[in-house]
Amino acid sequence: MDKEESTHSQADVLIIGAGPSGLMAAYWMARYGINARIIDKRNTKVFLGHADGLRARTLELFDSMGFQHRVLQEGSTSTEANIWVPGPQGKLIRQAFINVARVDESPFLNTCLNQGRIERFILDSIREHSDLDVERGVIAESLEYDEELSNDPNSYPITVKVRVLGEDDSKVKDGCETTGNEVNREDLLPDDWADLAPRRKPQKTQIETIKAKYLIGCDGAHSWTRKQLNIPVEGSNTDHIWGVIDVIPLSDFPDVRRLSIVNSAAGTILVIPRERGLVRFYVPVQTCEAGTTDRFDRSTITPELIRERMQAIFAPFTFDFKESNWWTVYQVGQRIASQSTKGNRIFLAGDAVHTHSPKMGLGMNMSMQDGFNVGWKVALTVAGTLKPEVLETYASERHPLAEMLLELDRHWSPMFNDPKPEMADTKASDMALIAGKFEDFADGWKVFYPASSLVRRAEDDAEFAFARHMIPGERVRPAKLRNQADGGTVWTTRALESDGRFRILVLAGDMRDSMQKQRIEALGQALDGQSGSSISPFGRYLEIAGRFQCPIDVLTVHSSPWKDVEFFDFPEVLRPFDPVKGWAYDKIWCDEACIFDRYCDGTAYEKWGVDRARGALVVVRPDQYIGWVGELEDLEELTQYLDGILVKRSTDKVDLVL
Amino acid sequence: MDKEESTHSQADVLIIGAGPSGLMAAYWMARYGINARIIDKRNTKVFLGHADGLRARTLELFDSMGFQHRVLQEGSTSTEANIWVPGPQGKLIRQAFINVARVDESPFLNTCLNQGRIERFILDSIREHSDLDVERGVIAESLEYDEELSNDPNSYPITVKVRVLGEDDSKVKDGCETTGNEVNREDLLPDDWADLAPRRKPQKTQIETIKAKYLIGCDGAHSWTRKQLNIPVEGSNTDHIWGVIDVIPLSDFPDVRRLSIVNSAAGTILVIPRERGLVRFYVPVQTCEAGTTDRFDRSTITPELIRERMQAIFAPFTFDFKESNWWTVYQVGQRIASQSTKGNRIFLAGDAVHTHSPKMGLGMNMSMQDGFNVGWKVALTVAGTLKPEVLETYASERHPLAEMLLELDRHWSPMFNDPKPEMADTKASDMALIAGKFEDFADGWKVFYPASSLVRRAEDDAEFAFARHMIPGERVRPAKLRNQADGGTVWTTRALESDGRFRILVLAGDMRDSMQKQRIEALGQALDGQSGSSISPFGRYLEIAGRFQCPIDVLTVHSSPWKDVEFFDFPEVLRPFDPVKGWAYDKIWCDEACIFDRYCDGTAYEKWGVDRARGALVVVRPDQYIGWVGELEDLEELTQYLDGILVKRSTDKVDLVL
Repeated sequence: MDKEESTHSQADVLIIGAGPSGLMAAYWMARYGINARIIDKRNTKVFLGHADGLRARTLELFDSMGFQHRVLQEGSTSTEANIWVPGPQGKLIRQAFINVARVDESPFLNTCLNQGRIERFILDSIREHSDLDVERGVIAESLEYDEELSNDPNSYPITVKVRVLGEDDSKVKDGCETTGNEVNREDLLPDDWADLAPRRKPQKTQIETIKAKYLIGCDGAHSWTRKQLNIPVEGSNTDHIWGVIDVIPLSDFPDVRRLSIVNSAAGTILVIPRERGLVRFYVPVQTCEAGTTDRFDRSTITPELIRERMQAIFAPFTFDFKESNWWTVYQVGQRIASQSTKGNRIFLAGDAVHTHSPKMGLGMNMSMQDGFNVGWKVALTVAGTLKPEVLETYASERHPLAEMLLELDRHWSPMFNDPKPEMADTKASDMALIAGKFEDFADGWKVFYPASSLVRRAEDDAEFAFARHMIPGERVRPAKLRNQADGGTVWTTRALESDGRFRILVLAGDMRDSMQKQRIEALGQALDGQSGSSISPFGRYLEIAGRFQCPIDVLTVHSSPWKDVEFFDFPEVLRPFDPVKGWAYDKIWCDEACIFDRYCDGTAYEKWGVDRARGALVVVRPDQYIGWVGELEDLEELTQYLDGILVKRSTDKVDLVL
Repeated sequence: MDKEESTHSQADVLIIGAGPSGLMAAYWMARYGINARIIDKRNTKVFLGHADGLRARTLELFDSMGFQHRVLQEGSTSTEANIWVPGPQGKLIRQAFINVARVDESPFLNTCLNQGRIERFILDSIREHSDLDVERGVIAESLEYDEELSNDPNSYPITVKVRVLGEDDSKVKDGCETTGNEVNREDLLPDDWADLAPRRKPQKTQIETIKAKYLIGCDGAHSWTRKQLNIPVEGSNTDHIWGVIDVIPLSDFPDVRRLSIVNSAAGTILVIPRERGLVRFYVPVQTCEAGTTDRFDRSTITPELIRERMQAIFAPFTFDFKESNWWTVYQVGQRIASQSTKGNRIFLAGDAVHTHSPKMGLGMNMSMQDGFNVGWKVALTVAGTLKPEVLETYASERHPLAEMLLELDRHWSPMFNDPKPEMADTKASDMALIAGKFEDFADGWKVFYPASSLVRRAEDDAEFAFARHMIPGERVRPAKLRNQADGGTVWTTRALESDGRFRILVLAGDMRDSMQKQRIEALGQALDGQSGSSISPFGRYLEIAGRFQCPIDVLTVHSSPWKDVEFFDFPEVLRPFDPVKGWAYDKIWCDEACIFDRYCDGTAYEKWGVDRARGALVVVRPDQYIGWVGELEDLEELTQYLDGILVKRSTDKVDLVL
């Protein structure tokens, strides 16, 4: 050890683990320009296999991050789910055919694409916005947390010693290697080639001591971070062991390219069509007591064994494969960490908090949404703009969802884990029941965040009458709008770009009505600080250094016909002028059907439950969730909401003293 | 000279010029795996400015090449065109507002994105499919063509001596430098960063002598290749000189983000909104006699002068800019080369053949379509699969279109070149008239290729009654279909992938009808060679070495409801089995409306003019143009068509002798 080089450094944020949740958190560091580090013990990113199911809500986030089009181009969508059971003669028959596409809720459908591509897209986005890069082959070795420092926002209460593996170090075992998967260049798209070779390493192993203000542990089910904090995990006493394999199927089973559950006397298989002709199969292998990993010999599970099980289940249909580009053995129980934070300085996200069966296609989604939620909050706090106490909402928003996820998994898993054929008849109705639950939860757009400083709910959970479907704690229901200046159409999921700012949605109503136009002009004056009151949110809060003068953006959506209104009809504060960038042509939008885009159908106001004449006022958080809803005159309440979460400029304080 | 290194090499195809037309040709070399070279005198690719208008037809090609989604994500669409003229008080007024989006014709709209991004996308696609790369900083210096060798398809009648510029060479002047544009890394997306620095050069200049079977000259309006061949250009005696500038406008002109023609007493401006807040302006500067370039001093035109002209034209609206990332001076007349080939061994494409005013947004489109047309033909000939005489169709298909383009430009240009205000009143109707002509030509989907070995027209140009809108010589009208195996939807523009193969479209009609099913089974047997006849096109033609065993692919589109038919209902030859890749699940498609995709509306048969019950048979060329149309029983005629253009396997010939 004493020969090893040792260095010391400081970082505002340290992220351990560069899987989907860690990368989502890192995305925010890139967007806010935070002095952050992200380390991962593996030598390279994931390329093939691993998680693959993407829910519509996740694609909505990807749209706000700017790369959903790449997922749609490469991924495979599933719009129906089929259930196969033994028929009268014992031969498998298609028992049910369930529509799982909820077309009015989201522009996007359930899509499958392997985790390696998702990591590629997030990494590209991080690169576009910053110099932040994942440091690979770096292992955390010790963690100290000095609670006494935690009240000072500028302190570095966290000390992590990391080992930077050098050429002299033995190769780290990763998930792939345990099952002997090899990655060939031919299996990858060109944009992943450069990452296939591990980066140049230091000649010798180095030790680095990193002092950090915040730490986000995204280091998976066996989270090292969680163990250092002695946070217990709770849950089932049983682990289920699955074989998971991605193959090009050679089969006469009719639904091998359709999402299907096949439940024969010999067992159950989940069939998930994937990109590039691949199909993923989940095959239950064994159940054992939790914590008995040592007693279960993973080497007994081979692709050969999985193939044989599948052939038995699919019989009398044929099943075989010659090409498999990834397979693994999952051993997983329903478990949840008792806490997902330590003093709101250290956070756990993703599998480090919750583990469950992989077969709902929810794991990667939940993990990424964890990382997304904690990422913007930590970054905006480090930037000095968000009040540190808002960080409490990470646990209060995400932990209950982790619990719901496990609850759902407990209902769902038995359908796969119990191969008893007599259950077959009930499975279709079970599945319909669970599909019903999915409507409230799994697809991700009825995810409720509870009332908090970030979520100003109406009294007694009543709806706000002027914006019935704009419910604080939910995401903005997507609609396609037409830009007033250039006539182009765009989904709100893209227009509400995840650039880090809160966004005031001015739903301006019908601007042709002179009374309504007066309301908008009055709102414009108030927003601009011209009305003599001190409630304008602009210029009031600390800037995001190097990014935005103001942490609040404003977007206007009117309901008048596109041709009857001009861009310059709107108050200047709604379309501000920049001496270099000119007028903000991307700020005024129209909710009217247009002939050249069938999805731009003029239904935004309806989807949002807002009166087309009178409009409403909405605050959307940086993560597209609704924080506050009011009427066009409620600027005082809006500013109160923002005052509760954002740090005011010191000049304002001086003003107040004067 | 005698100190320079000199080497000799052979290439099947040499492409001179790596602009849009050269890259489109190179795309095909990559897809067919041809031993090709592509050289360009510039040190780097284009990054900013230059051509920017993309017509729907070009986007359809991009979809078949796999990157249209990147264009849609980054580009700016124009759906209306506005005409501004002096009003009663002399102030500019919006005189006309013309819908230019033809939504039923194509999935895509007129889109603007700079040439640098288009080159990026084509380069990425070339890289995905081959090791072919553009050799930059390479100048062709001499060309010899030995006509006597031209009858032997394996000969190398072309000798080009090229100079590979070394570090000791002075920097080559390119279009950018003449106007002093600088490219900053901040102006680019990360995927262009690596190309910003010129590649490592040889230390010394080198001379290489390349022997080639075919040469494609894509070297622009001042084509070196054309000059070596002494091919004259014909056309107008007048050159128009334009200032062209990309800026972030600072203006209160209401339509600065909308496609507009502004015609004031002070002159005419064309306004073209672009990506990333940029707007392109075309400003006529001067007219001079052709060939008098020397007498026109380009240095008199500066961004300052362009700015002042624009301020005069836009007055009383304000106009200014601080950011401009590209500008240039175009001097251009309507001119056309008298020939676009020499012995069907050397071809000219793009601006080397035709030049015209840049303001129809057609130049890059025509050029790319030239390169696309010549590229697949040359490549497939080199592969040995296409009969060399088919190469005659490059000139017969593209040259008349170049003539039409110039004709259109002659009508269009005066609207800009003549700043007389008294013309203003007539311009709206003129524009409507020209927009009408556009419907037949400019958008690109009514481009007719005349009858030839590649285009089997009906007698007397009559329609084929069983496929009224499948007209040989036109492209397949796009429709969105549903995959029978996995239920996903896709535009035909993507399904008809530009992978290099001819494609038989089996429009199978309604498979629920037993008579119709019998017809399909009979077709399957005939295609499979089981019917005893020798008319199966499979196994009949020379393979494309290293790519496809058979140069013909088959795609089936039925009109039955998706749920009433199974993938395995179709004859095996329509969904062939590969021992590694399994069943060809991407071969059977359904024309039925589906609830989750508003564009998959079950109108394909209607668009194609095909009877939903009886179907039809269509051959689509590798470039998505229709070559042949028949009924499901017309396999003999289909094979005759293919025999006329494809080279048979020698084993077939042996069979015939036996």
